[in-house]
Amino acid sequence: MIKNDLFLKALKGESVSRPPVWMMRQAGRYLPDFMKLKMEYDFFTRCQTPELAAEITVMPIHQIGTDAAILFSDILVIPQAMGIEVQMKPDFGPFVPNPIRNMQMVANIPPTDAKEALKYVYDAIKLTKQMLNDEVPLIGFAGSPWTILCYVVEGRGSKTFDKAKGFCFENPEAAHLLLQKITDVTIDYLKEKVKAGVDAIQVFDSWGGLLSPKDYQEFSMPYINQITKALKDLTPVIVFGKGCWFALEDYAQTGVSALGVDWTLNADVARKLTDNKITLQGNFDPARLLSPIPKIKSMVKEMIDAFGTDRYIANLGHGILPNIPVDHAKAFVDAVKEYEE
Amino acid sequence: MIKNDLFLKALKGESVSRPPVWMMRQAGRYLPDFMKLKMEYDFFTRCQTPELAAEITVMPIHQIGTDAAILFSDILVIPQAMGIEVQMKPDFGPFVPNPIRNMQMVANIPPTDAKEALKYVYDAIKLTKQMLNDEVPLIGFAGSPWTILCYVVEGRGSKTFDKAKGFCFENPEAAHLLLQKITDVTIDYLKEKVKAGVDAIQVFDSWGGLLSPKDYQEFSMPYINQITKALKDLTPVIVFGKGCWFALEDYAQTGVSALGVDWTLNADVARKLTDNKITLQGNFDPARLLSPIPKIKSMVKEMIDAFGTDRYIANLGHGILPNIPVDHAKAFVDAVKEYEE
Repeated sequence: MIKNDLFLKALKGESVSRPPVWMMRQAGRYLPDFMKLKMEYDFFTRCQTPELAAEITVMPIHQIGTDAAILFSDILVIPQAMGIEVQMKPDFGPFVPNPIRNMQMVANIPPTDAKEALKYVYDAIKLTKQMLNDEVPLIGFAGSPWTILCYVVEGRGSKTFDKAKGFCFENPEAAHLLLQKITDVTIDYLKEKVKAGVDAIQVFDSWGGLLSPKDYQEFSMPYINQITKALKDLTPVIVFGKGCWFALEDYAQTGVSALGVDWTLNADVARKLTDNKITLQGNFDPARLLSPIPKIKSMVKEMIDAFGTDRYIANLGHGILPNIPVDHAKAFVDAVKEYEE
Repeated sequence: MIKNDLFLKALKGESVSRPPVWMMRQAGRYLPDFMKLKMEYDFFTRCQTPELAAEITVMPIHQIGTDAAILFSDILVIPQAMGIEVQMKPDFGPFVPNPIRNMQMVANIPPTDAKEALKYVYDAIKLTKQMLNDEVPLIGFAGSPWTILCYVVEGRGSKTFDKAKGFCFENPEAAHLLLQKITDVTIDYLKEKVKAGVDAIQVFDSWGGLLSPKDYQEFSMPYINQITKALKDLTPVIVFGKGCWFALEDYAQTGVSALGVDWTLNADVARKLTDNKITLQGNFDPARLLSPIPKIKSMVKEMIDAFGTDRYIANLGHGILPNIPVDHAKAFVDAVKEYEE
């Protein structure tokens, strides 16, 4: 039994005394103790060493006091497991030396044993669960197949991922084969994460908002829905599509336990689109954590007033920024805990 | 009298035989003749030399056959005129060596004589009008004050413009003073453009979609509305806020002649948000021009079917990409011209 079960209750739609709170990318970046580890170990060493991943995962629980932990990892461990080389270059971000650009390259991706190739993740989960000692639940995550495709085709981060989109629009068959291969590995991977002990999973569709609603229905949503269908009876599933407000209504029908929303969507519109029936998670603008602390606190109160305390998980609308002062992050979490209607 | 008045009719809401069509960033990038000039002259030389700007502006009229010309220029000529150094670095984009970061720097920006400082733009307009010989109308443009602020504070392009947003959230007073200074110069500038001969103006709020609806109401919309108010009785005003679907309803009340929409918004939702009363412009995904030509043509037909022929200007949902084949761009324009219900 998890002692602080606010997050799990909100996922079930049960009534709570106050909303649970966590922050996307809470494990890392803005935390001085994380920065010390960053000086010592490179990015994928931190991901692939269970002791380091677990240590980073629990940091914000003790230092910031969030109601859930999220495993320190990266969405790009999936293409790595599939044999696609992914580097994380300092001051540059993800880099794929041999990006996927044609059907032959897609066809050549061999079958992946997610159980074997990503064992270090499951070991990190087991160790983290021990360290958390049932204080708060642990979230596992994966990137959406579309978002993974963006990186492995574009070869690097991008504002618009034009090469990735062009690949899909020029070679839809190759795109769908690649998306299916990523989906299959992701499902195996998330099932193993559940076996290893995570209490919920979140699918991040960081680049879904680059597609038109119709292209989203073709290239992103069906693959996320395959993941939801395969996982939802094993663990609560949260889907977060950045910029994908147009898909909320459809996602609400797929058996997800919660939907993430970003800050460009007002709470009342999000509630209306989901017929006021599903748990929503979000949606504080991460850059708004640069505001003075009293302003952060008043904005958090307004946010909860707008979403309501039930069927709601307080969070940012995207990952926390590296330049957020720790006391500002803590003020955000505290403001949720201090909430009174 | 302009011979091809489809664009101006659509802006007035008058009935047309088919929708007019133009493409954002149609003057440049993907055109081989433009690339030749690019090898010879640097970016701001092309902007600041009326003969070059005019030559580039008319290129797509002759080569692609769009129904309107848009002056080749850049939104960053405004901060340049205000004494803020802006460079355009190859393979990097805009670069501001001394970005604005505090109230003192904002206060130190001297008053700007837009008539004097940007004379080369008005000269380019006069020359372009001669070269167009009243075949099609000429559009002039400016960046929104918020979007200009993004560049001069961030100092460079960015996915998220966190420094610019942080500046506004930490120093709202300084942000508002800077936004007002940019607005004042922009209004003078656009009035001079109208005097020089442009037939309509468009305000590009390329980064408005990075703000929450509430922050948009504070930091972007009021300044755009000042511009609309000052210009709307002189010339038709088009406002295009990338990602700003949440503001469409309010913009429809401000006296604009048309609103731009991007491809993440379905036509029926855009029509509903604007009460089916205002001319809409958009919204083909620029990356979709990488599709095979028959697919482009069928998608254009679907787009016009959805928006309707009246109160509609066919366009992309953002600027054309540099890697679009010329025959694909032309297929887009041709498909609009060939449209039959």
